[in-house]
Amino acid sequence: MEIDASRLQESMEEMARIGATPGGGVNRLALSNSDREARDLFTAWAEEAGLWVSVDEMGNMFARHEGLNPDAAPVLAGSHLDTVPNGGRFDGSLGVLSALEVIRSMNDQEIKSSRPIEVVNWTNEEGPRFPPSMLGSGVFVGAFKRDFAYAARDTNGLRFVDELERIGYRGDLPCRPRPLAGYLELHVEQGPTLITEGVQVGIVEGIRGITWLRITMKGVRDHAGPTPMHMRKDALVGAARAISAIRDIPGKFNPDLVTTVGEISVSPNAINVIPERATFSVDFRHQDEMVLAQTREAVIREVNAAASREGLEIEIKSLGGSSPLAFDSDITGTIEHACSERGYSNLRLWSAAGHDARYAADLCPSAMIFAPSVNGKSHAEDELTSWEDVTRGCEVLGDAILSLVNCI
Amino acid sequence: MEIDASRLQESMEEMARIGATPGGGVNRLALSNSDREARDLFTAWAEEAGLWVSVDEMGNMFARHEGLNPDAAPVLAGSHLDTVPNGGRFDGSLGVLSALEVIRSMNDQEIKSSRPIEVVNWTNEEGPRFPPSMLGSGVFVGAFKRDFAYAARDTNGLRFVDELERIGYRGDLPCRPRPLAGYLELHVEQGPTLITEGVQVGIVEGIRGITWLRITMKGVRDHAGPTPMHMRKDALVGAARAISAIRDIPGKFNPDLVTTVGEISVSPNAINVIPERATFSVDFRHQDEMVLAQTREAVIREVNAAASREGLEIEIKSLGGSSPLAFDSDITGTIEHACSERGYSNLRLWSAAGHDARYAADLCPSAMIFAPSVNGKSHAEDELTSWEDVTRGCEVLGDAILSLVNCI
Repeated sequence: MEIDASRLQESMEEMARIGATPGGGVNRLALSNSDREARDLFTAWAEEAGLWVSVDEMGNMFARHEGLNPDAAPVLAGSHLDTVPNGGRFDGSLGVLSALEVIRSMNDQEIKSSRPIEVVNWTNEEGPRFPPSMLGSGVFVGAFKRDFAYAARDTNGLRFVDELERIGYRGDLPCRPRPLAGYLELHVEQGPTLITEGVQVGIVEGIRGITWLRITMKGVRDHAGPTPMHMRKDALVGAARAISAIRDIPGKFNPDLVTTVGEISVSPNAINVIPERATFSVDFRHQDEMVLAQTREAVIREVNAAASREGLEIEIKSLGGSSPLAFDSDITGTIEHACSERGYSNLRLWSAAGHDARYAADLCPSAMIFAPSVNGKSHAEDELTSWEDVTRGCEVLGDAILSLVNCI
Repeated sequence: MEIDASRLQESMEEMARIGATPGGGVNRLALSNSDREARDLFTAWAEEAGLWVSVDEMGNMFARHEGLNPDAAPVLAGSHLDTVPNGGRFDGSLGVLSALEVIRSMNDQEIKSSRPIEVVNWTNEEGPRFPPSMLGSGVFVGAFKRDFAYAARDTNGLRFVDELERIGYRGDLPCRPRPLAGYLELHVEQGPTLITEGVQVGIVEGIRGITWLRITMKGVRDHAGPTPMHMRKDALVGAARAISAIRDIPGKFNPDLVTTVGEISVSPNAINVIPERATFSVDFRHQDEMVLAQTREAVIREVNAAASREGLEIEIKSLGGSSPLAFDSDITGTIEHACSERGYSNLRLWSAAGHDARYAADLCPSAMIFAPSVNGKSHAEDELTSWEDVTRGCEVLGDAILSLVNCI
């Protein structure tokens, strides 16, 4: 199948104008006015392409291209139109608009499909406004209760359900599992592997498991002057030693493991007061459940060592996470085949970021395609994927969709 | 001279009710309504004791007990009535009210002095509302310009001079040096040395020099998932390694040295984003200028090592500080003599906290007396000094004042 590369680029560019930031990014938080505008535009385009758009009670949007066999389970393809604050132009939009472009090109070329195809826009994939992330796909597969999502509040105290209602995207369709023949999602890699390796298409083998912890160390607040070093219980020193040690775990342990401390807060946080309390997050990811469990133990061991050296009390809180998930090997094989046919260099890799495909895979055979991220950058205004790579990703997505709608 | 211990305790307790916190501390920020109330009460007590109260253009208050020789340079004794937020009942008040108690007891016992004695309440010793600290005594000795202090703003944007005017303590007396025969300040130690050694009175040899730095490390913001460990430039990891190393400098280098990182902020500070920027403070103190200079070099060396290991850029900003200052050995000798005469155990030590005496010493022979701090606690609601130690400190202060007003 041929893809209209310039139409795809124009659509991407037009969508990126909704919530555009002066720095060249996009600020389109879930259920904001910009999100509504993006949804309206997607609806208009989908209807122009002859798709029937339905919206479920979570605001998930399904734009259906009817199949020759309308009773067959549909193939879903898409991603999300919401962004993080000051995010990029490709994260999410690429997957939704490429799937739409596949339908448009099928229309142009009068390619019929046996199964129906639905282009999906999942609600609240990102999550910074209404944590946790992937609420739309999560409720769809039953990972969260609908009313849990409805009750989520943003930092202004606005409720998810009220904002969904306000922007006019609280649909009637129940948000619950239904028979699906497959799920495909094209997304930017958000990491440097493909760019660094000079590879055109990434075939995602699965999504790494993630564990999130919050560690609090408690020492004794004291005046920075008169308290001798040996009498101190400095919570920030304990945290610092733990953070260094956590950074060093992957190197000692497993090269695919990543560990990150992204967040820290210190109390009272004054230049001349010994910190009484330091709280920091730990994020670690790997594709093997066993490695995650061992990493958790290693982190706790390092935290204990750092705390006891400084005489601190500790509290370790689990903030959840997710298990590793391997995608369907038939579909990843189909994607690889499409790459070979087109002569695109490709690489199998694991996604270290969460995606809606993580949940979709609970319901049906699923997989993802990655397009290279320039400098590996994402969740930033300078997020960039070349238009050539966008086209390649869309072409491979189209090939895989066609294979699924006719063969499964 | 005898001190009326119960009157001193009652005065301390009454003063502590102004700005009292539910947790047993005092919240009496400089130039707040509570500060005005404390000043009014001090004025009333001083006038009852026959003192003549004058206020200078910085709000510094001088309550003068006339000497037999009114033209002789006066001896100053006092401290400050302002506190840090949720501070203690002793820090500052002890020095002002003990000096007042010495005058009251002299009155009771009809003890005359050759030189005048002035009980001083310095404005804005603490500084959290209007940094830097010790503004009143600093302007008095010429370390700061008056208009620099006047222009200081609190976090609500209120100017020092407007707040001084508002509480009615912008006096007419120029704030500038004048001939002084000596300066004495009784203060709580704010550290654990006296309590730990079981000593009743501290004779302060001088004030340690302080250096304040602000270090910023800049790396690259990236998604915590897809960025391999070896491609990261994590600003918080750099900061953590530097903070650990800075904690270890005194142990390797000089046992009297103290180093503290009290403040840190990280950007963007999100659980799943590799920190792009980490900014932290460094505070180090010692009595020897040479040791301070060497410590500065050692800190910068460690910061550079931590940053280059993680591939970070650094920026080092000097936030000032103060040189070490040795007090007058005649006066410390006088204080030691008073302790011996009264049979009070005593110890010579260096203050690691700044005090108004630091500036007064620029003008005249000065010294300080420390009373033990229970658990070494200060700048906290549970700051405590036993009433027995309060009395001992006041007695020794009285002896030293009498010695100065009659002998120098």
